[in-house]
Amino acid sequence: MTRKNLFNLIKKKKSFLCIGLDSDISKIPKHLLSFKDPVFEFNKQIIDSTKDLAIAYKPNLAFYESRGSKGWLSLEKTIDYLKSLENQVFTIADAKRGDIGNTSKQYAKTFLASEKPSLNFDAITVAPYMGQDSVTPFLSYDGKWVILLVLTSNKGSEDFQNPLSSGSATFEKLGIKTLFRKRLFEQVMIKSYEWGNEDNLMFVIGATKAEMLQKVRNIAPYHFLLIPGVGAQGGNLEDVAKYGINSQCGLIVNSSRGIIFASGGNDFAEKAREQALILQKQMSDILVKYNII
Amino acid sequence: MTRKNLFNLIKKKKSFLCIGLDSDISKIPKHLLSFKDPVFEFNKQIIDSTKDLAIAYKPNLAFYESRGSKGWLSLEKTIDYLKSLENQVFTIADAKRGDIGNTSKQYAKTFLASEKPSLNFDAITVAPYMGQDSVTPFLSYDGKWVILLVLTSNKGSEDFQNPLSSGSATFEKLGIKTLFRKRLFEQVMIKSYEWGNEDNLMFVIGATKAEMLQKVRNIAPYHFLLIPGVGAQGGNLEDVAKYGINSQCGLIVNSSRGIIFASGGNDFAEKAREQALILQKQMSDILVKYNII
Repeated sequence: MTRKNLFNLIKKKKSFLCIGLDSDISKIPKHLLSFKDPVFEFNKQIIDSTKDLAIAYKPNLAFYESRGSKGWLSLEKTIDYLKSLENQVFTIADAKRGDIGNTSKQYAKTFLASEKPSLNFDAITVAPYMGQDSVTPFLSYDGKWVILLVLTSNKGSEDFQNPLSSGSATFEKLGIKTLFRKRLFEQVMIKSYEWGNEDNLMFVIGATKAEMLQKVRNIAPYHFLLIPGVGAQGGNLEDVAKYGINSQCGLIVNSSRGIIFASGGNDFAEKAREQALILQKQMSDILVKYNII
Repeated sequence: MTRKNLFNLIKKKKSFLCIGLDSDISKIPKHLLSFKDPVFEFNKQIIDSTKDLAIAYKPNLAFYESRGSKGWLSLEKTIDYLKSLENQVFTIADAKRGDIGNTSKQYAKTFLASEKPSLNFDAITVAPYMGQDSVTPFLSYDGKWVILLVLTSNKGSEDFQNPLSSGSATFEKLGIKTLFRKRLFEQVMIKSYEWGNEDNLMFVIGATKAEMLQKVRNIAPYHFLLIPGVGAQGGNLEDVAKYGINSQCGLIVNSSRGIIFASGGNDFAEKAREQALILQKQMSDILVKYNII
């Protein structure tokens, strides 16, 4: 999906909501367990009840792999169903892959190529630790996107991504204190300009640090940002918009557990819609407020 | 597998060889394609012909996922076969996973837990970019190992892992030049001491930079290191031993394509054994030279 088509979806649905399909079989409603493929049935009902409100769906690979080959079949059926909606949703494989070039090429084929058994997602999340040749194979598919981990929403993001890598020197006689500052997440964004651009590269930026979005926008004013962490992880949508929105919205905000597990009963799809609608309405207001629609 | 048992395997087989099962279906001998599960048949024959020479096997997930649910079945059969060898090999899932805590917990279960459909590997490679809570869920399984990406063998390792994050200040009047130096891969190792220890944590260190092993051993004298990049990626075994060996060997050296694709014909398993034997003999000599056996 092109950037233009993605922006059109946002305007049409008045939404920049992504629903994370973290479809843990131990958490889905019990009555679904009698279906042949309970996880696919769960996903299908969630998708059917929210597809006019969400612009994107993001299956998290961990919850499929944990069921082995059966889980992979649920994933295959889910992406096929999403694809049958004919460009009405943007699809993200939340896989956080990244390996040496030869191996990343295989992962890229798995998730982005269109021929079966490849999965034909529009985008995949990629970890940057191994650098250029671990990322660029994912950028070789036309109309497909890399969503690079930059600043994540978890506590561990303070270990390497966010600390200032700085030195300071105080020379008392001269009254001089010199500081050197650099953050790894900023280095990752800057380096990525050598690999891709705002038409094939997005960044994951955790919503739990909305004010950091200012620093992100200083470096990447035009890129789309995938913002996890609204809801269960504590982020705030107004703050995200305040610091992160741009003229083409430039935001895809994800909510997973807050929507898909809003109810554990027979009404799970209905309750998921209610939660999605709350977010979509806020998003619609934000899009109006910032003159995007 | 405990550290002691791993060291016993090294002494018994006079080897610290790991064989990477990067079993790309497009590269395996054509005559295997008539089998019901060609990739498993390939792996089985490779394992049968090398299991007295290799202490470890390392399936690379990319080459299984690329075949979808069928590929996952080949992986399940391969790990079951390796497990049937009853602690005679150490098993590594080369998966390079890492996500927020809730998700890493699922990945850890998938690869390390013993109950089906979990895969019951002895170890998994983990990417450190997301920090503590992305790594520690993998450390919660007794007798299992995290192999943390530290300094990889690819060109992209120069993008973030290896550059000196330094500042320099020159004060000409005082004749002072001050330098601040730190490398991300060193920070990752140092930080990991808060998460695990030499009994449950290893580090991936690319063999293409053998002299860097001195820096690694300054920080981690006792840890086992998984060394990819001997063979196809250009590393040298003598140099690896010179800079990296410790009193319990402390090395697991991986070779993938150089062994498993030594021949594309009917003799592939035999040729794989020949290549493995060359490495095992070098390793045996090294273990004698450094008084380990």
